[in-house]
Amino acid sequence: MKAARKASGLPICTEIMSADKIERFVEDVDLIQVGARNMQNFELLKELGKTHKPILLKRGLSATIEEWIMSAEYIMAGGNENVILCERGIRTFEHYTRNTLDLSAIPAVKKLSHLPVVVDPSHAAGLWWMVEPLAKAAVAVGADGLLIEVHNNPECALCDGAQSLRPERFARLMGELKGIARIVGRDM
Amino acid sequence: MKAARKASGLPICTEIMSADKIERFVEDVDLIQVGARNMQNFELLKELGKTHKPILLKRGLSATIEEWIMSAEYIMAGGNENVILCERGIRTFEHYTRNTLDLSAIPAVKKLSHLPVVVDPSHAAGLWWMVEPLAKAAVAVGADGLLIEVHNNPECALCDGAQSLRPERFARLMGELKGIARIVGRDM
Amino acid sequence: MKAARKASGLPICTEIMSADKIERFVEDVDLIQVGARNMQNFELLKELGKTHKPILLKRGLSATIEEWIMSAEYIMAGGNENVILCERGIRTFEHYTRNTLDLSAIPAVKKLSHLPVVVDPSHAAGLWWMVEPLAKAAVAVGADGLLIEVHNNPECALCDGAQSLRPERFARLMGELKGIARIVGRDM
Amino acid sequence: MKAARKASGLPICTEIMSADKIERFVEDVDLIQVGARNMQNFELLKELGKTHKPILLKRGLSATIEEWIMSAEYIMAGGNENVILCERGIRTFEHYTRNTLDLSAIPAVKKLSHLPVVVDPSHAAGLWWMVEPLAKAAVAVGADGLLIEVHNNPECALCDGAQSLRPERFARLMGELKGIARIVGRDM
Repeated sequence: MKAARKASGLPICTEIMSADKIERFVEDVDLIQVGARNMQNFELLKELGKTHKPILLKRGLSATIEEWIMSAEYIMAGGNENVILCERGIRTFEHYTRNTLDLSAIPAVKKLSHLPVVVDPSHAAGLWWMVEPLAKAAVAVGADGLLIEVHNNPECALCDGAQSLRPERFARLMGELKGIARIVGRDM
Repeated sequence: MKAARKASGLPICTEIMSADKIERFVEDVDLIQVGARNMQNFELLKELGKTHKPILLKRGLSATIEEWIMSAEYIMAGGNENVILCERGIRTFEHYTRNTLDLSAIPAVKKLSHLPVVVDPSHAAGLWWMVEPLAKAAVAVGADGLLIEVHNNPECALCDGAQSLRPERFARLMGELKGIARIVGRDM
Repeated sequence: MKAARKASGLPICTEIMSADKIERFVEDVDLIQVGARNMQNFELLKELGKTHKPILLKRGLSATIEEWIMSAEYIMAGGNENVILCERGIRTFEHYTRNTLDLSAIPAVKKLSHLPVVVDPSHAAGLWWMVEPLAKAAVAVGADGLLIEVHNNPECALCDGAQSLRPERFARLMGELKGIARIVGRDM
Repeated sequence: MKAARKASGLPICTEIMSADKIERFVEDVDLIQVGARNMQNFELLKELGKTHKPILLKRGLSATIEEWIMSAEYIMAGGNENVILCERGIRTFEHYTRNTLDLSAIPAVKKLSHLPVVVDPSHAAGLWWMVEPLAKAAVAVGADGLLIEVHNNPECALCDGAQSLRPERFARLMGELKGIARIVGRDM
């Protein structure tokens, strides 16, 4: 990872799934992700609170908005206030999409906390052709950022190909997102 | 209702909850609403299929996208193809909002059917301050229209005051919605 | 139906889906069923309140226990207090079973109301091999009765064959249910 | 804990929430619990697979039956086959009970795996007066065991008092459970 960061100049984000892995990785990454399945892994949250890296905290599959913010409090209580919340869909009876993206959570988080909140439309829907409309909706509803999967050749992706955009669609989408951001009073 | 329509020049939309009420009202209304609780009242749907009025079919609280489109088919099978679908939130474990607005349902409906689909952010959230961001998200995701509750004096409204916008906020919102509609290639 | 009742000596239970059908059927049936999809068809409930037939009110797929009892109140407000509640499963994210049978609803109903409550394990699970254990659990939890589908030849049933028991299994099950009923202080 | 085990002669069950805590506790406990919020803490599961203590694996709040069994496979893949599954309620729209106890999961687990499965009616409902009927239902549906909270003086309990039974009720309940177990062909 260190070599890749140096060679590409790109920042590195990695998911850490266990408190005892933090020490080994913390210096080499720029952003640490807590996955949805670990949102209430309180031991991990407490250890991350002692680091100074920004934490991307994904919402659990059946976590209420309140529980999600509580999990962020576990990290902040340790002294690390760099927490970014990430809405990535909740589990409901609807199975056309993999999960149900809960965009109402964005204004709710804005009301209940000062934390930035981003949206991951790729994992929520699991369908590449939904990523574009959901990304636009996420910006319109007030999200502070987006996580979008892009791949040169989605058919050959090692994983998540079905939810990845090609680079040319992504470029066009970015133009539209900028226009919506301007209308809702944001500069992205 | 007839007098109100004549005096105001406004079209009238009313909810009909039972097949035997259709005959009495059908001539005096411009749009017939089927409420979420009647989305699978098949007797009502079949009778509405014999009329020639446009039908606004709200999604049931726990109806899948597929079941919702099936209910539209019940109406269309009788010969009335003027069906408008309306997403108004589904029931999930999240209770911060009254219901969870499922905006992924809009691109799904567009893929699965040719029917127009509108969004009701007022009933979904039940919170007036969520209506504006959700309305913008609905236009951005591709909705064909919106149902927004407006009241001159929400504190004194006979019902649904907590989810109603004041006229001045509504006017400002309309300006922003037009901008978003243009970006996503729609003229509203 | 009249002929079948006379020939067989069996009581007849039928589902009525619309208020305007009540008059035609009310004299010929012994029990009127309100299906899950009509639990909040308030026009139908109000009309059934004017009859004197027992009403079997199935719980809606996403109805809370409170809403279900409220629907019973609609019927009783008209003067018909012969309402039997029927738990038949609710819609959740779990899809191994068709619906999730909510047996906690039985003691809840007993606490909140005086109405009898029965359980339909056949429709809830949709799997014949689950009917027996769920029926026993329903009696153990305090249900006042059961709805169990039986068919001489489930493979050839016109509908619901996959959830029907053969008569010989049903007979054996009845013996076990009687034993459990005695232990929990009930005579069935 | 060691002292308490020695003094009382009672076996000790404790929840371990992080892989790096296993070493410190593993020798002093008789059963290790994995809580619902850690059901998909895969690092923890893998480390528990290397121990030889029995593991009580609680079902996650929104975990499907299939995912729950998969989590058990993570433990067993490491060589530890002493896994006991524990159903403790899932998250649904119903809020009368804290969670919805999914008793259909018991026959499902029996069909899909060879693992023993127990039921925790105290945590599921969160209401002491529901513990008795739900415990009876759990035995009737085929559970291999129960987790029941008992307290000499529930009003003064440090936690979970509202869901705890008094010892005299527990003793009476045990008698009834034995009767039901006998009927369904089990000796408890």
